[in-house]
Order: sequence, then structure tokens, then C-alpha cells
Amino acid sequence: MTLSFTKMQGLGNDFIVLDGINQPFTLTPEQIRQLGDRHFGIGFDQLLLVEKPTDPAHDFRYRIFNNDGGEVEQCGNGARCFVRYVTERGLTDKTEISVEVATGIIKPRLEANGLVTVDMGEPRFAPRQIPFVADEDQIEHSLQVGDETVSVSVVSMGNPHAVQVLADIDDGVVERQGPLIEYHPRFPARVNAGFMQVLSRNAVRLRVFERGVGETIACGTGACAAVVSGIRRGLLDETVTVTTRGGNVDITWRGPGQPVLMTGSAVTVFQGTVEI
Amino acid sequence: MTLSFTKMQGLGNDFIVLDGINQPFTLTPEQIRQLGDRHFGIGFDQLLLVEKPTDPAHDFRYRIFNNDGGEVEQCGNGARCFVRYVTERGLTDKTEISVEVATGIIKPRLEANGLVTVDMGEPRFAPRQIPFVADEDQIEHSLQVGDETVSVSVVSMGNPHAVQVLADIDDGVVERQGPLIEYHPRFPARVNAGFMQVLSRNAVRLRVFERGVGETIACGTGACAAVVSGIRRGLLDETVTVTTRGGNVDITWRGPGQPVLMTGSAVTVFQGTVEI
Repeated sequence: MTLSFTKMQGLGNDFIVLDGINQPFTLTPEQIRQLGDRHFGIGFDQLLLVEKPTDPAHDFRYRIFNNDGGEVEQCGNGARCFVRYVTERGLTDKTEISVEVATGIIKPRLEANGLVTVDMGEPRFAPRQIPFVADEDQIEHSLQVGDETVSVSVVSMGNPHAVQVLADIDDGVVERQGPLIEYHPRFPARVNAGFMQVLSRNAVRLRVFERGVGETIACGTGACAAVVSGIRRGLLDETVTVTTRGGNVDITWRGPGQPVLMTGSAVTVFQGTVEI
Repeated sequence: MTLSFTKMQGLGNDFIVLDGINQPFTLTPEQIRQLGDRHFGIGFDQLLLVEKPTDPAHDFRYRIFNNDGGEVEQCGNGARCFVRYVTERGLTDKTEISVEVATGIIKPRLEANGLVTVDMGEPRFAPRQIPFVADEDQIEHSLQVGDETVSVSVVSMGNPHAVQVLADIDDGVVERQGPLIEYHPRFPARVNAGFMQVLSRNAVRLRVFERGVGETIACGTGACAAVVSGIRRGLLDETVTVTTRGGNVDITWRGPGQPVLMTGSAVTVFQGTVEI
């Protein structure tokens, strides 16, 4: 059959979005891997599948598959693309939609300026929730990295992050420390290493060495973790623009017990059809 | 405007093909770079542009742009895709077409089985034509690579190649020797390092560490260089199937003064439209 898809990106994280409501189909994990290959297929970080909700109280069911074929949990950059897709395609005229995802219900919001806000959940700081080997929750922890001693804030946004605040993040520190921090023995599940440069109380630059991937052009949860860490350190106000190599995103966190909100763009790159 | 394109691949080398005859447009190098980005654009190794010939004695003019926006010379894998494209789209009903490219005229041929044969030109062996620092043309040259002494055949297919014949090409030799051979001082313009395993007189496996790129899944000129080297060493017959990570290609060389012919597949991956 001929499958129609839309290629989109948010912060450089790229997706194909498929309408499973008006175009019923099934894909095997092997087919997803083939479609995901950047030379032999379409190429994408994740495949986003829009379906009818299982409970009519909600607007959609939304499923996410990595390019290895496996179904995964939420992705902030993908959720923004999902919202732009269902509104641009006329599948809904709501600006706040209620969506069933693998982990529960999310309620992303289309802003008047076309940006999309996604609730990224509450940050967790307790060492066992990261997981991180430490006696107690502290805003900063000393960590021995090679022959350097660095100060990291640890936070879980569903995945573990270790964030440093540095005056310069372009002097080779990411390449040098990233792999050592990722595999540091005090992070038993490994960790995403964030390197943040504070420009003002409302603006930072960020580079993230992602667990299992290396440095990426964009990391949504990394941006959340960095801003939360900066707020806890007293360096940032509650809304901060994060500049990454993939673009800008705004992060808001109103403090302990509150969710992190991420607002950013989602861009339609091209339309396509592929035979499956 | 809305630009229609076809995404194709040959040996894993991937292309977008644009009909500049029925769909006139111009693209700046910056636009080509944007379209070529695999996260923010469509993503491709090269953009292939089909135009009317400047001389009506020929069928098409065919231009090739790298994903950095620069116009380049022939590419064997791209030429196969070009032929499939113009025949599948009904732009010609010929099976041997005469095409103006930057370097002159090529006459690729659509075979009855759907494969395409491209003339890759004559191999050159003289050291100064590679370029390679040596006193005379020899079929094999001893080369000191780190603490190993290896035997390479050197050949230019428009670009320089150094080919070894090995019993095992999966024991780490590509990763270990590739960078050292590429930058070996006896290759003043650097070199593509080929690692060939002979399976029979008509079949080889090949891995290529490409100059400026590292190991790739496919290298058309590398396959030509490897088979020519194997024929000169007396190991291969005149037609040989080369298996690479990107797929198979058949190479024919009838000896000195003759061109190398490459026959292989070209695959349409998907159709798309993009706003430019």
C-alpha cells in the first residue's frame, strides 16, 4: 500500500508523523527500522503515530516508535510536532488537547504564536530516583572526572541528568568530560551530561552529551534538567530561553512540586508517500 | 513554490532527483545545504538535477550537487538512479541514453532486468596519475603502515585508490589501517583505502575507507578500483560481483585501454514535495 507521511522536526529532533485514523495500517518493527534508515529509507529519530483514543474522554491516542522499531515513552520534541500535525491537518480545532500516551495522559497546548507547550513532568532530585550514588540530596555534588573535580546538579526528568554550570562550553569540555561522566560509577544507569553557560537570569546556552548517543543537536529533557538545576542554584528566574545547536526552547519551572513546561516550535519539513 | 522530488538510492548512496524540465526552478547553494540536512531538511548525499540538453544530439543534461551545495562531477551510483528516474517517469523510452554531464558525455544503459550499466572510465596506474610516490608502475607496492608492511595496488578511477587483498576484512584491519593509509605520505592527495576479500574468480567482498569520510556503506569507484586491481594481480576474471555493506554491484573490465563498466540497481525510496 501507499503510505502518506509528514516529515517534521522540533529542535532538530526529526520525526515522521502518520495519520492512523484516516489511513489504517500496521507496521512491523522491521518495517519501522527500514523506514527509519537515513540512506535506504526515509530517515527519522522517531515515528509518531496518531490514532483514535481508546477512551472518548480524550482526543487522540499517540504512540512513539524509535528508529530501531521499539515503542517508547514520551518525547517532548515529538509531542510538539504531534500537536502541530493534528491542528494543521484539521484533525482537531482545539488548542489544548488531551492525549493518551504510553505513560498516561498529556495535555499539550498550541499557543497563539504557533509554538507548542508540553508538560514535561516533575523533576526528581533524590539520589535513588536518578539513580546516583550519594548519601543525600544536595543542589551540587562534587564529582571526580578523570583528573578534574567538577560540580554537578543531578536531576531526573524521567531520565537521569548531571548538569554543570561553566563559563565556557566550547573549549573541548563536552568532548573530554562527556564520555567520562556518562559512564561514571556513581551513575549506575549511566547519565546524560549537560554543560550550561548562563547568559542572564533568563537565557542560557546548553550542550548535552546524551547517554548512549554522544553529543546531540537537541535534548528536550536536557533543557528541562539544566534550567531546573540553574533555578535551584539561584542563578535563573522561573522562565528561561535555552539555546542549543538545534534551536531555542523556553523552559518554565515554578519550583518544587511543580511540573516543568517546555515551549518551542515544531516545523513541517516535507510531505511524502512511500510504498510499504 | 512547491518542489516535487523523488528520493532514490544506489548501493546505499542516496539522492533526491528533481525534474528541471517540467518543473523549472533554481536553488541557491544555501537552499541545497538546507534540503540536504538529514534532520532539518530531506537529507541526501547528492541532489541530481535533470535538465534539457544544451545540444539536441543528446537526450538530457544531468547536473550533480553535493549536500554542501557545490556542483560536482560524475557519480556512478547517482547515474544509475538518474537512468531509472527518466525511464520510470516516462521522460524517455530509450534504453541507452546520451547525457551531458560536467565532464563530457556519458551513455548509461538500462538493462532488460532493470539494472543500469554505467561507463566509469579507464583506470589509470602511473604513479603520477594517482598521485603516488613511486619510481614506476607496479601491480603491487610495499607500503609501511604503522608497524605493518602491506601490499597495495594503486589505481585512479578519477580519484585515487589503494587496494589490498586480504583473507579477512572483518578483523579490525579497516579501522586500524584506514586512517593511516588515507594520510600516508606517499599519497600526496590522500587516498581511498580498499580492503578486498576474494571469494572466487567472480566474487569479492569489499570495504572502503573513503578519503575525507571514513568507512562508507558503498563506494562505486572503490568497487571498480578493487576489481581492476584483482584482475591485474591475476586473481579475478573480467566480470566480478562486488559485495559491499550497501549491496552488490557487478564490475566488468576487459583490460588495459578499456573502460570499467559498473552494473547495479537503483531504487526509488519515496516521493515527496517540499516548500522552497
